[in-house]
Amino acid sequence: MNENPKVALIMGSDSDYEVLKPAISFLKENDIEVVCNVMSAHRTPDLAKDFAKNAEADGIEVIIAAAGMAAHLPGVLAAFTTLPVIGIPVKGKVLDGVDALHSIVQMPSGIPVATVGIDNSKNAAILAVQILSLKYPYLKGRLKKFKEDMRNEVIKKNERLQEKIMADC
Amino acid sequence: MNENPKVALIMGSDSDYEVLKPAISFLKENDIEVVCNVMSAHRTPDLAKDFAKNAEADGIEVIIAAAGMAAHLPGVLAAFTTLPVIGIPVKGKVLDGVDALHSIVQMPSGIPVATVGIDNSKNAAILAVQILSLKYPYLKGRLKKFKEDMRNEVIKKNERLQEKIMADC
Amino acid sequence: MNENPKVALIMGSDSDYEVLKPAISFLKENDIEVVCNVMSAHRTPDLAKDFAKNAEADGIEVIIAAAGMAAHLPGVLAAFTTLPVIGIPVKGKVLDGVDALHSIVQMPSGIPVATVGIDNSKNAAILAVQILSLKYPYLKGRLKKFKEDMRNEVIKKNERLQEKIMADC
Amino acid sequence: MNENPKVALIMGSDSDYEVLKPAISFLKENDIEVVCNVMSAHRTPDLAKDFAKNAEADGIEVIIAAAGMAAHLPGVLAAFTTLPVIGIPVKGKVLDGVDALHSIVQMPSGIPVATVGIDNSKNAAILAVQILSLKYPYLKGRLKKFKEDMRNEVIKKNERLQEKIMADC
Amino acid sequence: MNENPKVALIMGSDSDYEVLKPAISFLKENDIEVVCNVMSAHRTPDLAKDFAKNAEADGIEVIIAAAGMAAHLPGVLAAFTTLPVIGIPVKGKVLDGVDALHSIVQMPSGIPVATVGIDNSKNAAILAVQILSLKYPYLKGRLKKFKEDMRNEVIKKNERLQEKIMADC
Amino acid sequence: MNENPKVALIMGSDSDYEVLKPAISFLKENDIEVVCNVMSAHRTPDLAKDFAKNAEADGIEVIIAAAGMAAHLPGVLAAFTTLPVIGIPVKGKVLDGVDALHSIVQMPSGIPVATVGIDNSKNAAILAVQILSLKYPYLKGRLKKFKEDMRNEVIKKNERLQEKIMADC
Amino acid sequence: MNENPKVALIMGSDSDYEVLKPAISFLKENDIEVVCNVMSAHRTPDLAKDFAKNAEADGIEVIIAAAGMAAHLPGVLAAFTTLPVIGIPVKGKVLDGVDALHSIVQMPSGIPVATVGIDNSKNAAILAVQILSLKYPYLKGRLKKFKEDMRNEVIKKNERLQEKIMADC
Amino acid sequence: MNENPKVALIMGSDSDYEVLKPAISFLKENDIEVVCNVMSAHRTPDLAKDFAKNAEADGIEVIIAAAGMAAHLPGVLAAFTTLPVIGIPVKGKVLDGVDALHSIVQMPSGIPVATVGIDNSKNAAILAVQILSLKYPYLKGRLKKFKEDMRNEVIKKNERLQEKIMADC
Repeated sequence: MNENPKVALIMGSDSDYEVLKPAISFLKENDIEVVCNVMSAHRTPDLAKDFAKNAEADGIEVIIAAAGMAAHLPGVLAAFTTLPVIGIPVKGKVLDGVDALHSIVQMPSGIPVATVGIDNSKNAAILAVQILSLKYPYLKGRLKKFKEDMRNEVIKKNERLQEKIMADC
Repeated sequence: MNENPKVALIMGSDSDYEVLKPAISFLKENDIEVVCNVMSAHRTPDLAKDFAKNAEADGIEVIIAAAGMAAHLPGVLAAFTTLPVIGIPVKGKVLDGVDALHSIVQMPSGIPVATVGIDNSKNAAILAVQILSLKYPYLKGRLKKFKEDMRNEVIKKNERLQEKIMADC
Repeated sequence: MNENPKVALIMGSDSDYEVLKPAISFLKENDIEVVCNVMSAHRTPDLAKDFAKNAEADGIEVIIAAAGMAAHLPGVLAAFTTLPVIGIPVKGKVLDGVDALHSIVQMPSGIPVATVGIDNSKNAAILAVQILSLKYPYLKGRLKKFKEDMRNEVIKKNERLQEKIMADC
Repeated sequence: MNENPKVALIMGSDSDYEVLKPAISFLKENDIEVVCNVMSAHRTPDLAKDFAKNAEADGIEVIIAAAGMAAHLPGVLAAFTTLPVIGIPVKGKVLDGVDALHSIVQMPSGIPVATVGIDNSKNAAILAVQILSLKYPYLKGRLKKFKEDMRNEVIKKNERLQEKIMADC
Repeated sequence: MNENPKVALIMGSDSDYEVLKPAISFLKENDIEVVCNVMSAHRTPDLAKDFAKNAEADGIEVIIAAAGMAAHLPGVLAAFTTLPVIGIPVKGKVLDGVDALHSIVQMPSGIPVATVGIDNSKNAAILAVQILSLKYPYLKGRLKKFKEDMRNEVIKKNERLQEKIMADC
Repeated sequence: MNENPKVALIMGSDSDYEVLKPAISFLKENDIEVVCNVMSAHRTPDLAKDFAKNAEADGIEVIIAAAGMAAHLPGVLAAFTTLPVIGIPVKGKVLDGVDALHSIVQMPSGIPVATVGIDNSKNAAILAVQILSLKYPYLKGRLKKFKEDMRNEVIKKNERLQEKIMADC
Repeated sequence: MNENPKVALIMGSDSDYEVLKPAISFLKENDIEVVCNVMSAHRTPDLAKDFAKNAEADGIEVIIAAAGMAAHLPGVLAAFTTLPVIGIPVKGKVLDGVDALHSIVQMPSGIPVATVGIDNSKNAAILAVQILSLKYPYLKGRLKKFKEDMRNEVIKKNERLQEKIMADC
Repeated sequence: MNENPKVALIMGSDSDYEVLKPAISFLKENDIEVVCNVMSAHRTPDLAKDFAKNAEADGIEVIIAAAGMAAHLPGVLAAFTTLPVIGIPVKGKVLDGVDALHSIVQMPSGIPVATVGIDNSKNAAILAVQILSLKYPYLKGRLKKFKEDMRNEVIKKNERLQEKIMADC
């Protein structure tokens, strides 16, 4: 067993980096080792293949891949590994990410990609942690605390809303 | 650790059972204990909540939930657990499953649902096994064999195609 | 019978507040008591449940709920009450609110949500007043005056248009 | 106050009658007087207008209107009354009801139509009963029983599923 | 026969005026009398009805109507007249005008609306002139000249493009 | 002036003939001479051009064109004539006619096509008669009678519905 | 230079064979050597890679690839070759081929796939012949004859239509 | 054989020039003679026809055509030539280019247009070079170098990403 669980975060283009920052932060906050790579299903297909083929041997346990347009990257990585692959459809200049969503979620029988919402990298990271928590017990507590924090944040927002409404009226 | 890993397969309506059969078969073939329930986010919301709240304590490690239309079930279960939840959008009488896809994949930040393709229950099962394989080493070999079998099946289909084409010409 | 009718306005996130202001104004102008809460189907599911379960006993007669993306909030509230629930799909960063529209309007048989147009909170408020007017006769007159005012506003706009056109030519 | 609450069920074409039968049944089971009419926003616009203008005086308290394609009927009725109008988008030969959904739910500010799911007439009827229940206390009990029955039906379906699964394995 | 042909240009809201300016200009350039009105299918339904019922007697020969969202206006006018009605779907804040397109083009059998492209008021005006040209021979020459002018404009644009390209290289 | 008004009905493929029959009937019932041709914007582009260029000289006053998929036919005809062109989007094997609708209605500025609903050839014919009625007074009476007949038909359908409902209860 | 030009026709699944038959026929009729293979971007990714890498050396000049759902196959082949790749989106059980269209046409900058219409394998074959005709002069004559034949077929269909119409009236 | 291969780049409007610049650059960098023209399927249909009819005799070997909205231009050119025609759907003010995509890709059987992604003119140019490379051997080397350069660029971006991430942490 690794000292720290290890997640790879692969993006089709370095322009996706901003979209992925919340994922990187969440993973690091949970003491997960993050490997980040720009890699293209079409421009560097052999690097993508090598990466995916070796991922398990390299100690990676979950792969997150983000891509826009005809977003083949998550599926191409999934073709070469039996690790769980999480796909993030990225919104491009047209079509609002629907092209990427179709290209990622509609995978053929046999090669699943765990798809999260368009541009929703944080959910990809949380899902990765949920997956890892089956094996790494310390993550279960982290996830429960995270859920509790979200709950409290909503409650606080509600309190602030009451003040704002009173001020408005 | 359980003797066998345990997956819950929750459906919004018993009419979804046919869609889910390939998932049940795949899970059982891989010696995974399967708990199947009809449960509704809207008609039995407290049962859904109780189920999700207790799932971890009940030894369940992955939840698969299938639903059509405004398919809230996977998200509602995810609200009450930190286990990974896999969502299967089911095609309804109209809209070809796009309504269910939107309702499952576009979850708000903080509560991911790992979405697979419309009606693609087998991929949900494979994803569940990939997730479990991090913890249960015997599943790694199974997944590799499954991948190899799929590869061989394609090769055989290709051989049969060559014969069919020769016969056609 | 209450002194004033009482409507709850629930939003999935405090960022929806701006979208909801026209609804709050319309309700208050019609002497309806408004209870506003930030509450999440996924981050505070038990608060949402408790709220909906107690709404009727708390004197609430109509619930308006606004949410974006996989907008489960109106449906989740509707699961726990027999009060009429009005849902407002909120436009998110992608998909122009279509995801929320599908998640709200395509509710399964048995649990309706009265859906209004995307971001159209004022129509939600008017609908709530129409519903309440069956029981509270003073609202019938208000609605008729509101309709008459709209009519006159269109007539005035038409007059101003005639002037603008003459000036343009 | 009427002896029985009264709901009008208006359809754009008599071909919509089959879609509406579950609504009629639900309303009658709840001792609601149902007025059914074929009426067209475009072919009999003055009849539609007269109907809507007189609906309140005729003792009608909720109007349900179903229409397909450019489904103007619910909105046209709503233009002439302050009663709550519930719209049912009906699936046509093309577009899976999306045209009707857009034509019904995207009403301009000031004239709401409470929209339910495509072809989902039963939900329209339940919503009507929820609305009426604010004024007619006997309906509250009916709705609670209906909710309880749905719950029990799901539980029974779940039991039957357990048997079926055992039989299948 | 009128001295000048007469076209009515009806808009659902005065905010549509900017979209309609190219239509007004084109009609006036062709010596067509233009009647412009803000009129609402839902807020002033009786004015819309009276206008459409009297349009023919008032010497109007073609009606152009523009509306956004659940754009009922063209269809509602068409219900009360046998004059040709041209509909312009107007882009709203969401859905890019698809809601208006569906609400205008998908009219039921019996009540056509001649639909042009989203926000394409100039095409509505040209279509109106084409229709009028059957009766008013002077318009045939105008349309031919307009077509010739468009042709020449493209040729000039092509010439300028050649210069630009040479400059760029 | 012709003895009878003359309308051309052009279809992209003879498989569209069934869709167009209601249009042909309606036109003939109104004593309009109908010229029917199979003609393709892509397979017989010069025939399409010659037809459109000569249409006016041949006494045709309105052109109706039906096409599916990338339905260029109506637009291509409109490029070569200043007669009004009515376009009927025809549903193909996929996409439910949305491709044809986009290809017909979204014409560039300068070349309108009067678009009717998907497969709605009858509305195309009615629109043609409305257009012709500006010049041919006998058609005005026909259109008014047709409108009256539609009205009466709805009223009769409503009467039959009342009987059916009584029988059902 | 080859004796005969050679085209590869790759399908993601043998269930696509029926869709591809018109392409095979057209290519063979034009004396083009056809290599047909079932090959999967995800189940046999290394075979797909090897095939594409060696295609040029194997004398293949154009690759046609058909796939449904998240149709990665054409793009994955294009990643490993500089031969022109033509992609055919295949209609699946849901979404009418839109998912495949998005996955094929929206390729990232640098790796084009020449996309034809959904299920339109014949157009893929014609496009391949057009491409090959630049190098193989005999194909130019074939394409011209094919165009002429299509033209004549439309003319014949038109003649038959005239007879049918006369018979109908 | 030409000294240099020759490609025509036709745009429906000069406003498309900016979208097409990357295509022009790529073609010129590869020593391809580029003929650029503004030409309209609807405003200058005879010029478009003449251009396409003469293209082959003028030494053009591939035609690239870009158009938005009801983007008939590529199909209309394809109707008059047997040269390969590449179509670029251009995003307009509404609908995000989906209208143009449908109008270009869904061509009827017999007249293919090789469609690339929305606004993706560079891919159109690369596809043209791939097509030409069958006949012009020097282009094969260029394409391989281009592919290699893309690969290296991704590798460099990946290196820069590693630095950025280290800097961020």
